[in-house]
Amino acid sequence: MRLPQVQFWYEFASPYSYIAAHRVERLFEASGAEIVWRPLMLGPIFAANAVDGSPYQQASPAERRYRQRDVERLCAVQNLPLNWPSTYPRNGLLAARTALIGCDAGWVADFSKAVYRANFVEDEEINEAPVIAAVLSTLGLDADAVLDAAQAPDNKARLKAQIEEAQAHGVFGAPTVQLPDGELFWGNDRLDEAVRWMQDGAWV
Amino acid sequence: MRLPQVQFWYEFASPYSYIAAHRVERLFEASGAEIVWRPLMLGPIFAANAVDGSPYQQASPAERRYRQRDVERLCAVQNLPLNWPSTYPRNGLLAARTALIGCDAGWVADFSKAVYRANFVEDEEINEAPVIAAVLSTLGLDADAVLDAAQAPDNKARLKAQIEEAQAHGVFGAPTVQLPDGELFWGNDRLDEAVRWMQDGAWV
Repeated sequence: MRLPQVQFWYEFASPYSYIAAHRVERLFEASGAEIVWRPLMLGPIFAANAVDGSPYQQASPAERRYRQRDVERLCAVQNLPLNWPSTYPRNGLLAARTALIGCDAGWVADFSKAVYRANFVEDEEINEAPVIAAVLSTLGLDADAVLDAAQAPDNKARLKAQIEEAQAHGVFGAPTVQLPDGELFWGNDRLDEAVRWMQDGAWV
Repeated sequence: MRLPQVQFWYEFASPYSYIAAHRVERLFEASGAEIVWRPLMLGPIFAANAVDGSPYQQASPAERRYRQRDVERLCAVQNLPLNWPSTYPRNGLLAARTALIGCDAGWVADFSKAVYRANFVEDEEINEAPVIAAVLSTLGLDADAVLDAAQAPDNKARLKAQIEEAQAHGVFGAPTVQLPDGELFWGNDRLDEAVRWMQDGAWV
């Protein structure tokens, strides 16, 4: 029997995606759902929506200070390490392409968490091939072979198609959880509500 | 003995402020804090921050649809009635000025909830004096006298000063809860964390 699938749309530049990636499997465990890891890039989605940059880039200095503080507090509650990246937001393109290879091969979750660690703990340039290669090697994978596959034209096209699929479903930010009935929950701070919706059924 | 004070900054146009206004007293009850109702206008704060409109006004059509859905779901969970206002966001200037009179007189909480009802349930134009007068009358107040006081120059200046005070404390959106130690928690979805911070002390 196939498990009900929960699509977890996430972006490697996003600190709230970092936090959600470390909670989503545990939170949905009791609902018996399978988490489908769906890496995407928000840049093309913002551009298509005529939104001028990320919420952080749009924000005032006061809001930027707050957002960093908010992430610090949330990470502390979740016991997640955090060193605010010296480049933020960081380009997650290579990481997203590589993650797609892991979707088929079964290592996408471990890879994604390791990339988040590189970005948000070790402050590494995750769009550089040696950084991603090191992550892959740590997972016991053939870094050269995976990177070749990640950067092949068909895989680039696949990421583009995946982003278009997200847009078609109404995804405009990350992290976003999409339930089997199509209901969207945007933000790490809506994960608990998503689980409740999954378990109790639609309440509106 | 004076109770520790929690500043509750809110905007009458904001649906998340509507929800928070109905939760904030109950949530902080166990912490023994006094909720200080601080009405503000976000328009001048957005303008001062060179932010082009509210998050809703900045948002793409997909995000606007989502935000309405999000508010519907949250209201349903809280058993709060909701009819999405036909004008949104609605100008809350007169309501904010009137609420200030209630801050001294002790009816600000009841008045604010009644204005939210007018805006988010009864779809009334809360910037029109007859609507606010009707709210005041329902609370057994002398509507003409209160409206005169609300629109007097000193009260207009007082609201302006209150907004400047919010900005000085780093407030950039609403609802925002400001704890006695100055820590800010922005959003209805951060109320629980604010209570935890109040009760357990700073964790970062």
